[in-house]
Amino acid sequence: MPASYAYLGPEGTFTEVALRTLPETATRTLLPVVSVPAALDAVRNGEAEAAFVPIENSVEGGITTTLDELVAGAPLMIYREVLLDITFALLVRPGTRLSDIKSVTAHPAAQPQVRNWMKTHLAEDVVWESAASNADGARLVQEGRYDAAFAGEFAAERYGLEPLVTEIHDAENAQTRFVLVGKPARPAAPTGADKTSVVIWQREDHPGALMELLQQFAIRGVNLMLLQSRPTGKGIGNYCFAMDAEGHISDRRVAEALMGLKRACPQVRFLGSYPRAGVATKDVRPLRAGTSDDEFVAASDWLARCQDGRF
Amino acid sequence: MPASYAYLGPEGTFTEVALRTLPETATRTLLPVVSVPAALDAVRNGEAEAAFVPIENSVEGGITTTLDELVAGAPLMIYREVLLDITFALLVRPGTRLSDIKSVTAHPAAQPQVRNWMKTHLAEDVVWESAASNADGARLVQEGRYDAAFAGEFAAERYGLEPLVTEIHDAENAQTRFVLVGKPARPAAPTGADKTSVVIWQREDHPGALMELLQQFAIRGVNLMLLQSRPTGKGIGNYCFAMDAEGHISDRRVAEALMGLKRACPQVRFLGSYPRAGVATKDVRPLRAGTSDDEFVAASDWLARCQDGRF
Amino acid sequence: MPASYAYLGPEGTFTEVALRTLPETATRTLLPVVSVPAALDAVRNGEAEAAFVPIENSVEGGITTTLDELVAGAPLMIYREVLLDITFALLVRPGTRLSDIKSVTAHPAAQPQVRNWMKTHLAEDVVWESAASNADGARLVQEGRYDAAFAGEFAAERYGLEPLVTEIHDAENAQTRFVLVGKPARPAAPTGADKTSVVIWQREDHPGALMELLQQFAIRGVNLMLLQSRPTGKGIGNYCFAMDAEGHISDRRVAEALMGLKRACPQVRFLGSYPRAGVATKDVRPLRAGTSDDEFVAASDWLARCQDGRF
Amino acid sequence: MPASYAYLGPEGTFTEVALRTLPETATRTLLPVVSVPAALDAVRNGEAEAAFVPIENSVEGGITTTLDELVAGAPLMIYREVLLDITFALLVRPGTRLSDIKSVTAHPAAQPQVRNWMKTHLAEDVVWESAASNADGARLVQEGRYDAAFAGEFAAERYGLEPLVTEIHDAENAQTRFVLVGKPARPAAPTGADKTSVVIWQREDHPGALMELLQQFAIRGVNLMLLQSRPTGKGIGNYCFAMDAEGHISDRRVAEALMGLKRACPQVRFLGSYPRAGVATKDVRPLRAGTSDDEFVAASDWLARCQDGRF
Repeated sequence: MPASYAYLGPEGTFTEVALRTLPETATRTLLPVVSVPAALDAVRNGEAEAAFVPIENSVEGGITTTLDELVAGAPLMIYREVLLDITFALLVRPGTRLSDIKSVTAHPAAQPQVRNWMKTHLAEDVVWESAASNADGARLVQEGRYDAAFAGEFAAERYGLEPLVTEIHDAENAQTRFVLVGKPARPAAPTGADKTSVVIWQREDHPGALMELLQQFAIRGVNLMLLQSRPTGKGIGNYCFAMDAEGHISDRRVAEALMGLKRACPQVRFLGSYPRAGVATKDVRPLRAGTSDDEFVAASDWLARCQDGRF
Repeated sequence: MPASYAYLGPEGTFTEVALRTLPETATRTLLPVVSVPAALDAVRNGEAEAAFVPIENSVEGGITTTLDELVAGAPLMIYREVLLDITFALLVRPGTRLSDIKSVTAHPAAQPQVRNWMKTHLAEDVVWESAASNADGARLVQEGRYDAAFAGEFAAERYGLEPLVTEIHDAENAQTRFVLVGKPARPAAPTGADKTSVVIWQREDHPGALMELLQQFAIRGVNLMLLQSRPTGKGIGNYCFAMDAEGHISDRRVAEALMGLKRACPQVRFLGSYPRAGVATKDVRPLRAGTSDDEFVAASDWLARCQDGRF
Repeated sequence: MPASYAYLGPEGTFTEVALRTLPETATRTLLPVVSVPAALDAVRNGEAEAAFVPIENSVEGGITTTLDELVAGAPLMIYREVLLDITFALLVRPGTRLSDIKSVTAHPAAQPQVRNWMKTHLAEDVVWESAASNADGARLVQEGRYDAAFAGEFAAERYGLEPLVTEIHDAENAQTRFVLVGKPARPAAPTGADKTSVVIWQREDHPGALMELLQQFAIRGVNLMLLQSRPTGKGIGNYCFAMDAEGHISDRRVAEALMGLKRACPQVRFLGSYPRAGVATKDVRPLRAGTSDDEFVAASDWLARCQDGRF
Repeated sequence: MPASYAYLGPEGTFTEVALRTLPETATRTLLPVVSVPAALDAVRNGEAEAAFVPIENSVEGGITTTLDELVAGAPLMIYREVLLDITFALLVRPGTRLSDIKSVTAHPAAQPQVRNWMKTHLAEDVVWESAASNADGARLVQEGRYDAAFAGEFAAERYGLEPLVTEIHDAENAQTRFVLVGKPARPAAPTGADKTSVVIWQREDHPGALMELLQQFAIRGVNLMLLQSRPTGKGIGNYCFAMDAEGHISDRRVAEALMGLKRACPQVRFLGSYPRAGVATKDVRPLRAGTSDDEFVAASDWLARCQDGRF
């Protein structure tokens, strides 16, 4: 039985394009599924080796469905991340002109990324309707239900459409971050440009409670890259926090910070350590003095000497 | 011309029910509009005196559309908040039995709140389709498109349906928080149980950067009730933070904390001080020693005496 | 050759009384020496097994000579501490009455502890002259050089004097803390009511520099009992800090805090972990949640499981 | 009646030399007194306009007598500080050679500053005896009681001695800091290179208690230059803290920090804001972003606009 990766389908979306940047996909069966929960459940129940889903984008922020699925249920782990530049094409049936377009469709997530472009380039009375996915929008254009769809340019061929306009994106630097998620396993070896994801629940709510948890990172020179609050389901105002920190769980400063959180919090869920996409090791910011592994080892040696009376 | 409040429509949703808990709605025209942006734009362009929109719920967390609309564009201000317990009824055409139901509909936000109930009480092959709003779902049931709709019990009468099951909610304590938003104005007087909302942008990203901003609250004994990261639109990983803090901008501890943030951040947007819904003044937690207005005044007097050499 | 303890002499001082509270002195030769540096040098050059010297008192604070000698030179370690209530007797030659007293003497350190008593009970024109030690003051009274000496009541018999007044102490709770200091050795086993002494040098001087070092203790729930700045000898305004922290170097929270200081500081000198005098284990304040050894071990186990992918 | 300054005498000491660097001494009567308490009492009881006393030196650290007198009793205020390089001369009767010297004297504070020089340049059996002051030591040499005295070179002429060796100082950069102390008055105008002195008492003793107080400075970008613990007289281990902070009480960041301490502490004693000796305004380190008076004013304006609804 060949190993398989489930991914948020259908085929022909940005997710598939991002997934195919992973070299190992050449030897995997890729299974499009209908939702993020379905993708992660496929991993949990053993139907897939891993799932590939979006987790953050530059317009919407954290993808809450993905975060909530990772926060709850049987533990999963992030193995890899992929960053993809997001730029839309306006796909039409061959022969359609801009002025012919009366209706457009796409996944709702596309709307904030093309809204300004639409105002400038399409007629004011053009109707927008949501599709289940950008690929599905393209299919509906193929079927004649709408005149145009916003989707990745790569979707044109599959649906017999042509890209009337390309490189559409309201915001510069629009990107989506995807993660490959699997069952808990030994994290990939550190590369020097790594990221660690974790979810924490607070013990109590007092002035400074969250600040004290962030101190666990700060005092050890670990930079936070993402802090996303998610409801715990225990009523309004009750949140847990998904965090991405620079560094790898095998880095001593990260390991000690995680243990500090573990002691300070009623619950901590480790979500993985993995290479940062889009950052070369040489471009990682220098460590703050006193936080390198060498310095941790030296301090540990010193402590042992003190404990043994050899100083 | 009578003053009007725009609200996220259509009629017959939880939003309208929450809005009608405000006494002044008796003397206002209530305008349902199609989206949160439309509601806020109605305020910005003077078509409405205020807009009433959901901002947080216990299942989804912060309502990102609302937050993003408040974070960007012409400044607006939160005047009031309303908390509403969310519990669903299963609305059907009269005579329909549970076993007759083959298809259900509701707004997608309802799904996580009824999913478990559905698994237990409806057949496995029942089809779920999304509606534009819960009220719209009810209308579609009235029209015969679906067999049942999840919506507020109050929507039954309007659409000639009957509530087959009531009090459906997967999570205990399911609530939604709504805000009444208007143009900048002098905040309502403090009640002793107030909340202050603000959005901050960070100056730079270094280990401890966010922690240092939270210290502005912690050192002055101000409790944070909500911390929600939202993308700045400057590329992935760039976030601003919407925060709700206990207290009122006219409380000295809150005022000083806000000024501290203003100095420490390149940008701060004040979103208002307003009474906390669901909390009586007597139930507000006691202030930490040294953070009451009286103590601020006493310290200020002491400083003046020191500066004048009278000590 | 019998083991010997050097102590700040001469015989008949509070130091000797405090030293004799240690049971093992029954089997040691006790060597009075002329100064704290002489006592510590006796240890450093092997002439004594340990030195017993005052380190802190409730009137003068830290004894700077002792601190400076511990901070510099070959490393030494505190083995034990002893707390002694300090109360003076006014020693006179037999037959002397209060009204006969024209001159008094004592070690300068006694002066702040008897000054108010003198104002109330002795004539205004009584002359005070300093003695090299309280015992030496008693000797000078015996020789007729002065009319009275402030010293411990225990010194009366040795010098043929009588205690005219006893229990003299301006301040309530006047105590002196003494330490038994030896060469670096494995610290005594933890008792549950322990203290750890350390000296740190700062890396750089910026707003918050010292605060960041104190955070190393605070974040791990370790209470500071003493913070004493001492000049580094590198020019005015350059200080190192002698600190006493609650707990033992074998307590995980203390060990981790010490390693944190070691990494953050250019130099750290461990001065020992030893039982706290005057505090029963049952009276030690409860640990802050998340800082016990058990919780450190549990967090460490959790980390190992995360690193191994077993979670 | 001419205004007078009391100073720690006798004449011919470093204190007098430091005092005479103040231009206004030309028009003041200078009164040598026997002790620091006597000098400060002369101010408190109106006999002197101000008192000039040492407060810190690079070998001994804070001068505890001076600190303790400022901490307790009727409030006083530091008006000015003076830094003086300390270097000793070996004063002898004319004709004395180095090899003739069998006994030396000086104030005990001189000893740590000449100890190493003595080891190298004088015979091992030379006797050291303490004098009440360096000037008094010189007088005793004049009278023939000792062969040599360590004192300032300037003392030679007054006592008919000659400086056999000059520029004696074990440590580089040996300096003493003196302060001119008077009754509470409006502090001198800020110069841009100022210092503020304050004493704080802690409210309670818990892990992080002192750290939280230091945060009051750190969060506002105020650098601490001195932190000196002094016993409160309430028993061993009870300390207050004398602190010197960069900046002037009229600097907004310093004022706000002081008020923060005032609220957080049961007692705070302001000891004055005054120009820093030895530092030109241009050499003061740049302020941290967000802590200048302009930024405080801008933040205050912003707050007022928020409170008024004009934003």
